[in-house]
Amino acid sequence: MTKLVHIVLTPGEPAGIGPDLAVILSQQDLAARLTVVSDTDLILARAKELGIDCKIRQPSSKALSAKAHKKGGLDIEPMSLACSAQSGQLDSANANVVLQMLDRAADGCLSGEYDAMVTGPVHKGVINDAGISFSGHTEYLAARTNAYPVMLLANKQLRVALVTTHLPLKDVAAHITKERVQKAVQILHQDLINKFAIAEPRILVCGLNPHAGEGGHFGREEIEIIEPALSELRAQGLRLKGPVPADTAFVQSELEQADVVLAMYHDQGLPVIKHAGFGEVVNVTLGLPFIRTSVDHGTAIDKAGSGDIDSGSMLAAIEMAIEMASSHSH
Amino acid sequence: MTKLVHIVLTPGEPAGIGPDLAVILSQQDLAARLTVVSDTDLILARAKELGIDCKIRQPSSKALSAKAHKKGGLDIEPMSLACSAQSGQLDSANANVVLQMLDRAADGCLSGEYDAMVTGPVHKGVINDAGISFSGHTEYLAARTNAYPVMLLANKQLRVALVTTHLPLKDVAAHITKERVQKAVQILHQDLINKFAIAEPRILVCGLNPHAGEGGHFGREEIEIIEPALSELRAQGLRLKGPVPADTAFVQSELEQADVVLAMYHDQGLPVIKHAGFGEVVNVTLGLPFIRTSVDHGTAIDKAGSGDIDSGSMLAAIEMAIEMASSHSH
Repeated sequence: MTKLVHIVLTPGEPAGIGPDLAVILSQQDLAARLTVVSDTDLILARAKELGIDCKIRQPSSKALSAKAHKKGGLDIEPMSLACSAQSGQLDSANANVVLQMLDRAADGCLSGEYDAMVTGPVHKGVINDAGISFSGHTEYLAARTNAYPVMLLANKQLRVALVTTHLPLKDVAAHITKERVQKAVQILHQDLINKFAIAEPRILVCGLNPHAGEGGHFGREEIEIIEPALSELRAQGLRLKGPVPADTAFVQSELEQADVVLAMYHDQGLPVIKHAGFGEVVNVTLGLPFIRTSVDHGTAIDKAGSGDIDSGSMLAAIEMAIEMASSHSH
Repeated sequence: MTKLVHIVLTPGEPAGIGPDLAVILSQQDLAARLTVVSDTDLILARAKELGIDCKIRQPSSKALSAKAHKKGGLDIEPMSLACSAQSGQLDSANANVVLQMLDRAADGCLSGEYDAMVTGPVHKGVINDAGISFSGHTEYLAARTNAYPVMLLANKQLRVALVTTHLPLKDVAAHITKERVQKAVQILHQDLINKFAIAEPRILVCGLNPHAGEGGHFGREEIEIIEPALSELRAQGLRLKGPVPADTAFVQSELEQADVVLAMYHDQGLPVIKHAGFGEVVNVTLGLPFIRTSVDHGTAIDKAGSGDIDSGSMLAAIEMAIEMASSHSH
């Protein structure tokens, strides 16, 4: 019998739409157990605001008695906010608790209590306003687990991973080193095997420059860095194609022969997948010692409590986490 | 009565698939007059190789007697090659003639003899081997007409223009100046009016950095260069949105409210449109004193004479040229 997957959800910023998304999840069944790390009063208040009847359930401590998530309520692992959160009203007093919720979920994944972690959106600004240096979930979880993170965006049709992420464009070229390219490829290779159950991953690697440098005419990083980096890994048996021009990498005939496209930087890869389907795109952090998926949108604080939100990305993030954890635990 | 549009076609590299594409055009009617600038023997030889019966017709010098292109043959404006061209055999001896064919077509557009110019693929390497510095049609035609070119890629769903084109990625940021951003926006605005018959063009402008710099955290060009550049043009009445993050610019809800996306560099914009439909993408040079469209592929010299080619991009380039010239000449 397949083990029932246990997902932990951190709704994120309490003034944003994260709690709304958790409440919306109480309206449907899931093919996995779901535990939400949150303030109980926050969930009840947001449910009332949305006019949704959501019962709070304590998660069973006994795994054997655990059941898949059923509509009507939420299993809450309670953690109290520092002060009561109002929809749309950011308050840096809660920044520490928001991070403690991440810690709780991550620790539970590390201990095996949970099989995967799904995160709602946090607000970088309000956390930094609280005097805590924070550049995002990815970096935070990587630092806590001493991991090298690789950002992957995925929908049902396409997977795009990045060698570099949130850098000014002028600094990107200097960050493309043989070490970073190899690290990203290796983590991608391992995690496609371990977390996506792809036995022999085929990775399509973009060049850095237009036309992948066109033989050195538009830049030499392909010749001097990327190709040598890939050659060494090919010699180890990895199935790598590239460096290919980014504007041919995403053509259907190329995509059909690859399990993932590895772009060198943020805007080389993400515009394509967000064009192909924004609502359904899931952000996955590879390289962590556990499975973590995330919604691909922000806190949308002006929409918290309004009911006027799309839960498609949250649902896709949960479904991908369940799928990954299922293939992982087989 | 609508004036019959007159298209001039330069097949480009004689050893590549350009002549094949011209011959294939002899198998169908077009809603415009078509004149091909080429060596007559080359077209006859390629037609024989492809097993296509293609009659050579001299273009009528009298515009009044001109008729739309009919299948069965091609109107050829003859220009002899320096030496006979074989399919798949590059020969730098013909480089000069290839450029003279471009000159002939461009001069005919300038004089009003032709309404638009469509170009097949040339081979940059063999032209440079002939001792002629040549980086592409776009730059060549711009230099000849003393114009500032703006590259636009378009299919039926999407238009993407670029501020910078074939630069190493490390040099892109330094090339994003207020002048270049404004020049690109102004040309785009004018040409969408003049060549695409869009009365009040709505231009969606991407930032340079990921998340359009996220308030200066990932680069300051949006704050210091792009936004001030756009503000001045907005004050002149241009309908500009941005700078927006490139990965949200291409989301359907944004695209619905724009006539074109202006990307700051090659791989920020082109992977999206080529993913969306490679074969149908047409390359249009804006800023020239005439209409010029192009196929969006190379010379494919290994396929010349084989018959195993896709003429979709050539047909799309011709159709777009006809459409542009029709709205232009109304």
